Amino acid sequence: MAPFLSRRDLQFQLYEVLDTAALPGRPRFAEHSREVYDDILGLAYNVADRYFANHAREADLNEPHVVDGKVKLVPAAEQAMKAFREAGFFSAHADEELGGLQLPNVVAQAMHAHFKAANIGTSSYPFLTIGNANLQRVFASPEQQQKYMLPLLEGRWFGTMALSEPHAGSGLADITTSATPRGDGTYAISGTKMWISAGEHELSENIIHLVLARIKGAPAGVRGISLFIVPRYRVQPDGSVGESNNVVLAGLNHKMGYRGTTNTLLNFGEGGETLGELIGEPGQGLRYMFHMMNGARIGVGMGAVMLGYAGYLASLEYARDRRQGRHASNKDAASPPVRIIEHADVRRLLLRQKSFVEGGLALGLYAAHLEDEIETGPGETRRDNELLLDLLTPIVKSWPSKYSQEALSDAIQVMGGAGYTRDYPVEMYYRDNRLNPIHEGTEGIQGNDLLGRKVTQSGGRGLQVLLERIQADLEASEGLEGLDEIRVAVVKALNQSGAALQTILGQAPELGPDLFLANANSALEMMGHTVIGWMWLRQAVTAAQRLPGARGDDADFYRGKLQAARFFATHELPKVRAHADLLASADRTTFDMQDAWF
Amino acid sequence: MAPFLSRRDLQFQLYEVLDTAALPGRPRFAEHSREVYDDILGLAYNVADRYFANHAREADLNEPHVVDGKVKLVPAAEQAMKAFREAGFFSAHADEELGGLQLPNVVAQAMHAHFKAANIGTSSYPFLTIGNANLQRVFASPEQQQKYMLPLLEGRWFGTMALSEPHAGSGLADITTSATPRGDGTYAISGTKMWISAGEHELSENIIHLVLARIKGAPAGVRGISLFIVPRYRVQPDGSVGESNNVVLAGLNHKMGYRGTTNTLLNFGEGGETLGELIGEPGQGLRYMFHMMNGARIGVGMGAVMLGYAGYLASLEYARDRRQGRHASNKDAASPPVRIIEHADVRRLLLRQKSFVEGGLALGLYAAHLEDEIETGPGETRRDNELLLDLLTPIVKSWPSKYSQEALSDAIQVMGGAGYTRDYPVEMYYRDNRLNPIHEGTEGIQGNDLLGRKVTQSGGRGLQVLLERIQADLEASEGLEGLDEIRVAVVKALNQSGAALQTILGQAPELGPDLFLANANSALEMMGHTVIGWMWLRQAVTAAQRLPGARGDDADFYRGKLQAARFFATHELPKVRAHADLLASADRTTFDMQDAWF
Repeated sequence: MAPFLSRRDLQFQLYEVLDTAALPGRPRFAEHSREVYDDILGLAYNVADRYFANHAREADLNEPHVVDGKVKLVPAAEQAMKAFREAGFFSAHADEELGGLQLPNVVAQAMHAHFKAANIGTSSYPFLTIGNANLQRVFASPEQQQKYMLPLLEGRWFGTMALSEPHAGSGLADITTSATPRGDGTYAISGTKMWISAGEHELSENIIHLVLARIKGAPAGVRGISLFIVPRYRVQPDGSVGESNNVVLAGLNHKMGYRGTTNTLLNFGEGGETLGELIGEPGQGLRYMFHMMNGARIGVGMGAVMLGYAGYLASLEYARDRRQGRHASNKDAASPPVRIIEHADVRRLLLRQKSFVEGGLALGLYAAHLEDEIETGPGETRRDNELLLDLLTPIVKSWPSKYSQEALSDAIQVMGGAGYTRDYPVEMYYRDNRLNPIHEGTEGIQGNDLLGRKVTQSGGRGLQVLLERIQADLEASEGLEGLDEIRVAVVKALNQSGAALQTILGQAPELGPDLFLANANSALEMMGHTVIGWMWLRQAVTAAQRLPGARGDDADFYRGKLQAARFFATHELPKVRAHADLLASADRTTFDMQDAWF
Repeated sequence: MAPFLSRRDLQFQLYEVLDTAALPGRPRFAEHSREVYDDILGLAYNVADRYFANHAREADLNEPHVVDGKVKLVPAAEQAMKAFREAGFFSAHADEELGGLQLPNVVAQAMHAHFKAANIGTSSYPFLTIGNANLQRVFASPEQQQKYMLPLLEGRWFGTMALSEPHAGSGLADITTSATPRGDGTYAISGTKMWISAGEHELSENIIHLVLARIKGAPAGVRGISLFIVPRYRVQPDGSVGESNNVVLAGLNHKMGYRGTTNTLLNFGEGGETLGELIGEPGQGLRYMFHMMNGARIGVGMGAVMLGYAGYLASLEYARDRRQGRHASNKDAASPPVRIIEHADVRRLLLRQKSFVEGGLALGLYAAHLEDEIETGPGETRRDNELLLDLLTPIVKSWPSKYSQEALSDAIQVMGGAGYTRDYPVEMYYRDNRLNPIHEGTEGIQGNDLLGRKVTQSGGRGLQVLLERIQADLEASEGLEGLDEIRVAVVKALNQSGAALQTILGQAPELGPDLFLANANSALEMMGHTVIGWMWLRQAVTAAQRLPGARGDDADFYRGKLQAARFFATHELPKVRAHADLLASADRTTFDMQDAWF
């Protein structure tokens, strides 16, 4: 069985491309050291390998189902939660005073990556819980934190985010779940929530739902939406779990993949009152939720990266072992077949995967690095880093979601019929990852967010920061050997993207908002590829700097990085132009299309 | 539930783009008329709707399994075979003297399309049977035809093609199944065959395997491969089914999709002798098999088209019904949400699907039309048509396999979370179609076939014919309204592709065969898109000619064709350039990559 993750690449990304080893120089991380980080990642590998990877297929084949009114998961999921809890991973990122390790975001993200790669379905339970706790840490009152957040950080209770409703998925502005003040500071919550992951299970003593709802009399649209803490079981004054809060499971969704994560339809206020506590101010619910959502979007992107990465490693192992066919130049039918990794087209499929998943990993960790810069880095670059992270978030979410799916298709293709069977994991990864372009904001939403909001936000400062950072890395690449192709290709993609953005932004007033956004997907594609090209430039700079002093496996590793950068430069970045041209042309084809013509 | 197929589009392709109504003017089809064809297609729709579509999901959820030593399918599959048989569809294409209808290929293909769209898994049983009979019709002896082919045409017995072995899938040259002469004209077949679709079931009285094997002492490689008829049950002199022929089911493969089709590992000669009859001459097995294989490749392409088409129609229906969000220009939160088909990005996803599946359908039926031209058309164009069909076959097989998968991904995306659940069929189509880029020759094999063989075959005459045909359609497009974008885009793609081919072919001698073929996938992509662009040009010409005289739904239909052609021109054809540039550059990236660097 192939490993689910490349520990060597993770080290490269953290310590060679990023300067994670310097973080202990900051006050918040003063107790840390690279050794501490490595120990945690080593522990994560072992726990993920032993308690998560062990039941990925089992959970896929035995999806959650209801037995005697309770949602039943495979028993191994419970063991996994126990191991994750005992390792202290629920609170790894939290403050020391809350029992946490104060891990930097980049290390926490790298730690999480192991569980996503090993078993994406089971990993959802802790990650939704951690996201929930993160939101409470920022917006909930001290009393709420004491009551609801601490048990999450201990891993005793689990969390969800309950946003969508049957008639309102992407269009959250239209949610109708209501919150009626009960006069004692609490609210009676009533309504139906759809697509709630981890919405019901018996893995934890309690489930804390973060629920978007409208307080009676609130205005229409997003300004009328508030956020509530709604526990599955009411919490007693002493913090213990009490009676049912009347959150009723109305149904389970049956998905193509990601089957280990129970996905639910929940009725609030059925058969009795459902009590909720308001978080923060009324009408701020969507803003608070987006704090969690932005983290969740990076998490989705990283989940996609890790599924793609696991598929890549599985297909690589297969390609190194399986013998089939001969080189076109070999006419000797009696010669033995070659290992399929020797066929150029198989190497294309493998290099393509490598360029997608390692490029995606670099981006996901870069985003986490930006979070650290914002939280603990120098104050003078904080605002720039915030704007850059805002700009990158739709790409961090959507690019790996889309291109890991392509990588996984390539993994299946490398393995042929074998890859299409359930004897190997790649078909499962392919089914799992297809969710990622949908949840936490579809690709369409990400495109609109990028072109309609992030590109022009704060006078375009985020975009300016991006250009400056890329420029700095282009300068760092000069004089280094083997980098010409990637450098030239990045510059070209950057110029094409920049010119297209300038053109479409210049036309925006006359186009109007609908036509302006009609080709937002091309903006997402064009900027996504350009950003990943930049990520490859950064990796290539590091590899080129280290290659001369490297020997053996290390030298091969750096050569592989340079070749993958070259691949992305020659096979992928030239695709930017078609998207840039389309965007710049303000093409009306989809805008003009009529329902009746389909 | 959305329809699984657009009867209007099928009429358009057959009678407006192609001149199928003129075929009854040929002697072989003298008994036919357009009304006959329409009646057959109407019957096909009804049988497919009632007996195939009814159990597509049921067969997906209850894949074939072994009970008491027998492979058990869902009972509805048996009813489907009965209905297909009673409709006379097994022999629809066969000669009248064999009980057939002598249907033209293009009509037979259109008839088959219904079953592929309604239930791809169950449709495999009759289509493998028909392919088997087609091969026997050309290469088997009259005695063999009498004994083995007639029961297939009656639908009493079913057929398979047994090529691959556990160690030899794409690399058929390495098969080791042996055939030992028994002295009475028959052979004892011994070995193991892998990935045999419909290899074992109880749907028919007998199963006739077409088996590739080596006669003892035959040379290594493809020249030593012969083709044998191997029945599951031996056939008595009176044609009745006798004792077991010792073809033993060694295992079932468990696939991601296409689950209704049983897929088997078979041992020949286990527990007793397996008798086989040689077809034709020894050493010609692969050549004979490729006669069936070429038809099978068109069939795979059409299967992909129809899965994509069914997904498109399902997502279209959903998009017309589901309300979500508002236009960016609408700031009134109290206004009702719009139907999602009104969002430009959803229309992009729908137009993209439409352009892929209707483009693919046009190509699949054009290929069938070429088969008719070859078999019953004017003698002076026969050779040209043969070469053109040879050239197009790798594209007919691989382009829809790849782009229907993209279309199905778009269908899921349109439907969001709903599309990802088993409550709707699109996730199933997505799993089903992922097989198509693998079986009957992987995408890698199609690329090598196209660039390494078909492009230069007969002094490049096939390519020349392609250029002439496209040129003729470009001329036909002149002066017609609304065709500028598609015409200009096709010319551009054609010029880019042509120049890239010329460049790489010119360098072939110095590159050597391995490096020459290293970027064959780009040739496949570039030519595939160009050919589909041509198919859209043809459809657009017809639509533009008919639009002025059309009213109501018909006018909308033609406007939709023109808009989809425009979409392919503006959103897809510009992607040709990156592939053409890569091919022309004889890029060495994948060729130079080393195993150790991954």
